Amino acid sequence: MKCRKCGATAAINMRHHRLALCGPHFLEWVPEQAQRAIERYRMFSPTDRVLVAVSGGKDSLGLWDVLVRLGYSADGLYIGLGIDGGVAYSDQSLTRCRTFAEARGLRLHTVDVPSELGASIPEVARLTHRGQQKPCSVCGLTKRHEMNRVALEGGYDALATGHNLDDEVAVLFGNTLNWSTGYLGRQAPALEGRPGFAPKVKPFCRLLERETAAYALLRGIEYVYDECPHAEGATNLMHKNLLNRLEAERPGAKLSFYLSFLRAREAGLFVQPEGELSQPEMHPCSSCGQPTTAPGECTYCRTRRRVREQKEAIRD
Amino acid sequence: MKCRKCGATAAINMRHHRLALCGPHFLEWVPEQAQRAIERYRMFSPTDRVLVAVSGGKDSLGLWDVLVRLGYSADGLYIGLGIDGGVAYSDQSLTRCRTFAEARGLRLHTVDVPSELGASIPEVARLTHRGQQKPCSVCGLTKRHEMNRVALEGGYDALATGHNLDDEVAVLFGNTLNWSTGYLGRQAPALEGRPGFAPKVKPFCRLLERETAAYALLRGIEYVYDECPHAEGATNLMHKNLLNRLEAERPGAKLSFYLSFLRAREAGLFVQPEGELSQPEMHPCSSCGQPTTAPGECTYCRTRRRVREQKEAIRD
Repeated sequence: MKCRKCGATAAINMRHHRLALCGPHFLEWVPEQAQRAIERYRMFSPTDRVLVAVSGGKDSLGLWDVLVRLGYSADGLYIGLGIDGGVAYSDQSLTRCRTFAEARGLRLHTVDVPSELGASIPEVARLTHRGQQKPCSVCGLTKRHEMNRVALEGGYDALATGHNLDDEVAVLFGNTLNWSTGYLGRQAPALEGRPGFAPKVKPFCRLLERETAAYALLRGIEYVYDECPHAEGATNLMHKNLLNRLEAERPGAKLSFYLSFLRAREAGLFVQPEGELSQPEMHPCSSCGQPTTAPGECTYCRTRRRVREQKEAIRD
Repeated sequence: MKCRKCGATAAINMRHHRLALCGPHFLEWVPEQAQRAIERYRMFSPTDRVLVAVSGGKDSLGLWDVLVRLGYSADGLYIGLGIDGGVAYSDQSLTRCRTFAEARGLRLHTVDVPSELGASIPEVARLTHRGQQKPCSVCGLTKRHEMNRVALEGGYDALATGHNLDDEVAVLFGNTLNWSTGYLGRQAPALEGRPGFAPKVKPFCRLLERETAAYALLRGIEYVYDECPHAEGATNLMHKNLLNRLEAERPGAKLSFYLSFLRAREAGLFVQPEGELSQPEMHPCSSCGQPTTAPGECTYCRTRRRVREQKEAIRD
């Protein structure tokens, strides 16, 4: 297989694009794809300041690399969740992010959840009995809260995450199997900001996981290979397996599923009749000030209070 | 495994309903399910006259059996397509339908496509170059036309087909992968009649294929086991395989995908803004009188004319 652009030996063949590329041309192609998505979905402009949420994995570090190469002003945000899992998962992740930022002279914000919340994420899940055995629900809650807080406090114009096409399609598939029209209506590569909420964008939404992995490898980015030890429910993995089979049979099926969904969405498919199921009225949380649906404390602040109460009860 | 109703040895276990039943109780359960669908989707009432399209297979003969047992006035319609496929497929199918009807004293309409169109379905596909290699498209066109004609001429209140849950879910899945909102908006267990179109209903839409097969077997209905030799494209089969894997992992996934789709549809998900993409204006075909989108002859009549012209050209 030869590179379409220069005829050298190809490093990657992307069947769904009928495109094989050598390493150097693939390293040009990925930023072009990201730039196309940034423009197509109006994610941000060249003068905007972007905050990239980085986990130390291939997607988010690859995204940060690409945004900086494209000339955007992009700072990083690492949220330490206190996850060990026998591999010092969080420590390892922080090291990768710090090394990446220092080598490039980039600014990295860090949040340490065990200090903020008073307990690591797995501990919080146990103490508050949220999410049964799995800490994923409280982890998502915490990350959303802290990403939004740092983006707003830092005056960033957009919060970027490294979600790739496989991530987006698995979520889309899960929501489609239940026809969860509310979630479907809110799934987009770019969510506009609202009062109290930073805009959220996913510039890698059109790249398959194998493409983001190839980018990080060929670019020589050192990233954490391990998945989070608590990672992803069986359902999400099962859906990814099914979608991989589909893609193997019909190269391009994932991209086409996602893009045709976005077109239908843009054409107004999930627009709710006025009033009905539309955005609920928001109130500022009495503790942190972030918007929340019910008056009083937001779920994050209630969780934090509950952790403190539980810890005090144990201490007494 | 014991029958939930009587404790006898179960003949079938339906994991997605957490229900195991013995043969006699399963033979009661299937008509109850069909009756629920008939009422839930307002398919027809006890005094209506129903035309059941029968192919000689388990689904359509099982449906006819069930409708008659439920006390409905149901006649059959067999459309002979002139398909041989090395197994005298159409002849065999007609024999099964005739034997079924005669044994029960039921009325069976028959249409012979080779006489009506001047050629068998595979011949029509070749002569008209419709559908490349595959006669499925012209076969569907012909069946829709003839089913509608016989239903209207006979003054039937509804045209019933034996589509089961697997059929419905495979079509739904295919249309969802492309977000074909037009097709999605028209997929329903009961389509109301419009001027020139008989109402169409699918009382078996909530039964898995293994349940309709078990019904036919346990009821002792003699049916054609062979699939149509031209049957179903690779895509449809591939989708059915994927959906079978999904169902094996998550019993109930098919039913839930289908029912949540129907609920979203009923809630107005695919309702088109007025005018836009809504039902096109229809004109009566200048030859057969059935409604068609463009003035002049309908596609079926144009196909029939083309077959005659081709045959004459060959003869000359």
